[in-house]
Amino acid sequence: MANKQLVVGIDIGGTNTVFGFVDREGNILAEDRIKTTYYDEIEVYVAALYEKIMLTNQRVPPGHELIGFGIGAPMGNINKGTIEYAAGLPWKGIIPLADLFRRHTDLPVMVTNDANAAAVGEMIYGGAKEMKNFVVITLGTGLGSGFVIDGKLVYGHDGFAGELGHTAIRPGPSNRECGCGRKGCLETYVSATGLKRTLLKIMADSIQPSELRKYSFDELDAELIHEAAKRGDELAKRAFDHTGRMLGFKLADVVAHTNPEAIFLFGGLALAKELIFEPAKEFMEENLLHIYKGKVKLLPSELSTQNAAVLGASSLIWTIKEA
Amino acid sequence: MANKQLVVGIDIGGTNTVFGFVDREGNILAEDRIKTTYYDEIEVYVAALYEKIMLTNQRVPPGHELIGFGIGAPMGNINKGTIEYAAGLPWKGIIPLADLFRRHTDLPVMVTNDANAAAVGEMIYGGAKEMKNFVVITLGTGLGSGFVIDGKLVYGHDGFAGELGHTAIRPGPSNRECGCGRKGCLETYVSATGLKRTLLKIMADSIQPSELRKYSFDELDAELIHEAAKRGDELAKRAFDHTGRMLGFKLADVVAHTNPEAIFLFGGLALAKELIFEPAKEFMEENLLHIYKGKVKLLPSELSTQNAAVLGASSLIWTIKEA
Repeated sequence: MANKQLVVGIDIGGTNTVFGFVDREGNILAEDRIKTTYYDEIEVYVAALYEKIMLTNQRVPPGHELIGFGIGAPMGNINKGTIEYAAGLPWKGIIPLADLFRRHTDLPVMVTNDANAAAVGEMIYGGAKEMKNFVVITLGTGLGSGFVIDGKLVYGHDGFAGELGHTAIRPGPSNRECGCGRKGCLETYVSATGLKRTLLKIMADSIQPSELRKYSFDELDAELIHEAAKRGDELAKRAFDHTGRMLGFKLADVVAHTNPEAIFLFGGLALAKELIFEPAKEFMEENLLHIYKGKVKLLPSELSTQNAAVLGASSLIWTIKEA
Repeated sequence: MANKQLVVGIDIGGTNTVFGFVDREGNILAEDRIKTTYYDEIEVYVAALYEKIMLTNQRVPPGHELIGFGIGAPMGNINKGTIEYAAGLPWKGIIPLADLFRRHTDLPVMVTNDANAAAVGEMIYGGAKEMKNFVVITLGTGLGSGFVIDGKLVYGHDGFAGELGHTAIRPGPSNRECGCGRKGCLETYVSATGLKRTLLKIMADSIQPSELRKYSFDELDAELIHEAAKRGDELAKRAFDHTGRMLGFKLADVVAHTNPEAIFLFGGLALAKELIFEPAKEFMEENLLHIYKGKVKLLPSELSTQNAAVLGASSLIWTIKEA
């Protein structure tokens, strides 16, 4: 019997690098991690990561064949296999990550950003299996996006398509500074951090009591605000409502640009379900041209949040094997 | 010697329907027109149009073979070959235009909207011949857009991708009513009509003299404002500047969504050259994430304005012959 094919999916985060051996159905047969922050030298990091992957390979049940490495990383560039100027990682400038990996292996190595990986993961393993045109929005500390058109991930001319988080919410001056150095970017409103910032503004303007007034900005997180909103905290509910509306406003742009069948929301904020989906859907529809109204589905991702980044990264390799 | 292939390109406008016999190089060998407004019945219109096309065919030099009909129309839907709820045309509801045409011919018939046709035209005959990822923005009475990704026009799930003119300029209330029934759409700012509206607001706020103060709203057009701006009229120059900035603001979104190699501006307003390109480029760059800065070309269309709609419509057929 032929060996069953496996892919290694690698998710490079600011703190940890998590990887797993994934089969075509999205089962993770073995997984492990290394600390991203331990390695100032990218060559040492790649060597240590590769060694740990090979060690972990010994725990994979027999009868499997490894066919490639898919890597998701902030600012990962799929055209060049690089990471470019990623603020949250220890290595500066342009990192030729795929090339460094290829010093250790002859198998295919693909690099992309987390949101693109999530989009391909949704297509290979998740809710977009039957879809050709959809968008995935990842809502974490920031906001990422991946576009799939005609069944293919959109890379763009420079490999950087899908940075919806850094579109501006309005023309002209805005108060919200973004980590990218500009002001008023969508992710300063729509992300776990954006939700906190909105809550603080609402608290500042309102005199209404709230259980969240006892927390500092540093202590607050999306989960605390979510829990408070579920208990009926008015300010928390208003913060979600505003966040959802800003998201819906920009989703209407997504529809007018590429007319997808569905938009998937992925990540921590999406777990707040109707608190975020309802205002997002309402404001998206309100801003849609009549030809689009009621046609575009707004759906939660079907990738389990726990393994999604590893699954997404691994899915890149199936797309080239099946192309 | 084999016959040289020709396509009929048809541009359905609110007043006239113009068509031409076009070769692969974009030469128009014969052309003519009928009055769109004469025909309340769509079946009668199609029969009259087809008859006029066949008459005109007799003026085409011998040695040519007709291989298909490409049609550009407002609200043309490429997936279904329909025109859907086009406000400016005599026929209401959903018009099965391609099917009606096929009663007269067995050749391929394709329908799309004017902006998509302009995008394909730019790829087949114009400045995007060597490009795989670009966007065309058409600036006329309204604002249309066509997206090309990986060498293919983006249709979207419902066939309506590329309606940038109906994305909103900011969240929340806006004063500018749009013909689509909503408020604050980009085309209420960035189009020949948008330019007039902006000029009126500037005139209202300013006490500065202007040669344009003697014209009524109905008398004003983009050309008058362009001529005044060239002569140094301050209010006309400010109207162009504002128009260009609003355009540039939304072009930054286009870049963040699909990362094109170039954005082409097409139509009347684009003829104002640096009056529109300079503020558009400046505000686009100002709103771009660092990874995109300085990389995306903003270019004038290379299709001649006079024949562009017919060329664009005809170009659809070459894409299916060469796929």
